[in-house]
Amino acid sequence: MKFHYPNGKKYIPAKRETVRTKQEKKWSYSNRGMTLEEDINETNEYYLTNGIASIHKKPTPVQIVQVDYPKRSAAVIKEAYFKQASTTDYNGIYKGRYIDFEAKETQNLTSFPLKNFHDHQIKHMETILHHDGICFVLLRFSASEEIFLLEAKHLLMFWKRMIDGGRKSISKEEIENHGHSIPLGYNPRIDYINKIDYLYYLE
Amino acid sequence: MKFHYPNGKKYIPAKRETVRTKQEKKWSYSNRGMTLEEDINETNEYYLTNGIASIHKKPTPVQIVQVDYPKRSAAVIKEAYFKQASTTDYNGIYKGRYIDFEAKETQNLTSFPLKNFHDHQIKHMETILHHDGICFVLLRFSASEEIFLLEAKHLLMFWKRMIDGGRKSISKEEIENHGHSIPLGYNPRIDYINKIDYLYYLE
Repeated sequence: MKFHYPNGKKYIPAKRETVRTKQEKKWSYSNRGMTLEEDINETNEYYLTNGIASIHKKPTPVQIVQVDYPKRSAAVIKEAYFKQASTTDYNGIYKGRYIDFEAKETQNLTSFPLKNFHDHQIKHMETILHHDGICFVLLRFSASEEIFLLEAKHLLMFWKRMIDGGRKSISKEEIENHGHSIPLGYNPRIDYINKIDYLYYLE
Repeated sequence: MKFHYPNGKKYIPAKRETVRTKQEKKWSYSNRGMTLEEDINETNEYYLTNGIASIHKKPTPVQIVQVDYPKRSAAVIKEAYFKQASTTDYNGIYKGRYIDFEAKETQNLTSFPLKNFHDHQIKHMETILHHDGICFVLLRFSASEEIFLLEAKHLLMFWKRMIDGGRKSISKEEIENHGHSIPLGYNPRIDYINKIDYLYYLE
């Protein structure tokens, strides 16, 4: 049975950390069975351990209602509900600059539906740009395994077009024209910092 | 019954938002019944709504084990556990700069115990300084209701003294000498951005 977040996103439980053998670590573009979130988390871990950047995923916001305190063992949350996040999922620091982004994927082949984003996230991105932060989205077309970095200023433009009565999605051609394709790599998997260097002259 | 986080901090459930009357909003230094977290959240809301800064508390990290999906109502988390956070609690952006801090309080009168902090938080603060972020702690002496901003570089110094066999706390005199007292205000309640302006010449 599928559960959906308040934001319509499927809930994927975080994997427990496991020690991998070299065999298991073998990398291929196809059928890796990795989610976009896992790829980004591994990328951020690479940036962190190599002293490149400190960027983290925020925990899933949960409203805790009831907690049990069994003797001699850890507290157990017995009733809680998913809450809508008021910001994007990822933020942190790179070369002194504030970095903020959201990651989304679609099964669509030719366009990216804007319903993947929500008013409060759009508002948050506007705020970050107002404060001179580096803000963008990572968009993944799952069928073709293509990943694009699209700066928030462009996403906001397409969002405004929708609000003004225009199309409810960004065509893939528009994403190719305004965004920046990120090839899937081994380590780091999704090297978005490389694009940030290029876009913000941070090299 | 008291529950403690993995970090030894008491768990305080987030209050539901309530509409307050003017009477209730009346402000006094004593017996306000506000927690440090609530004061900081209201301060951050003030900064956000006034376009000053965008700084948020990260959600409590929770490992979700079991979720129920009742028909026609919201998903209920039935089993989950508190996880140790890998970063500090608050981060965001101010005038393009990355801001990162942790807030702690003590009942002690004459010193601030370093056991309020944990290895991973200290390591995170070192990382943030390495990347040229603005990093500090807000320390509250609950009995006297005094609040100090202590820059991470000083906290790290006192932490190192402990690791090297020195005292396991920071004396209040040291905090007064190296830190910056923040008077409790009405709106914003804990105006730490004012100190940041002063310390980092951002005015």
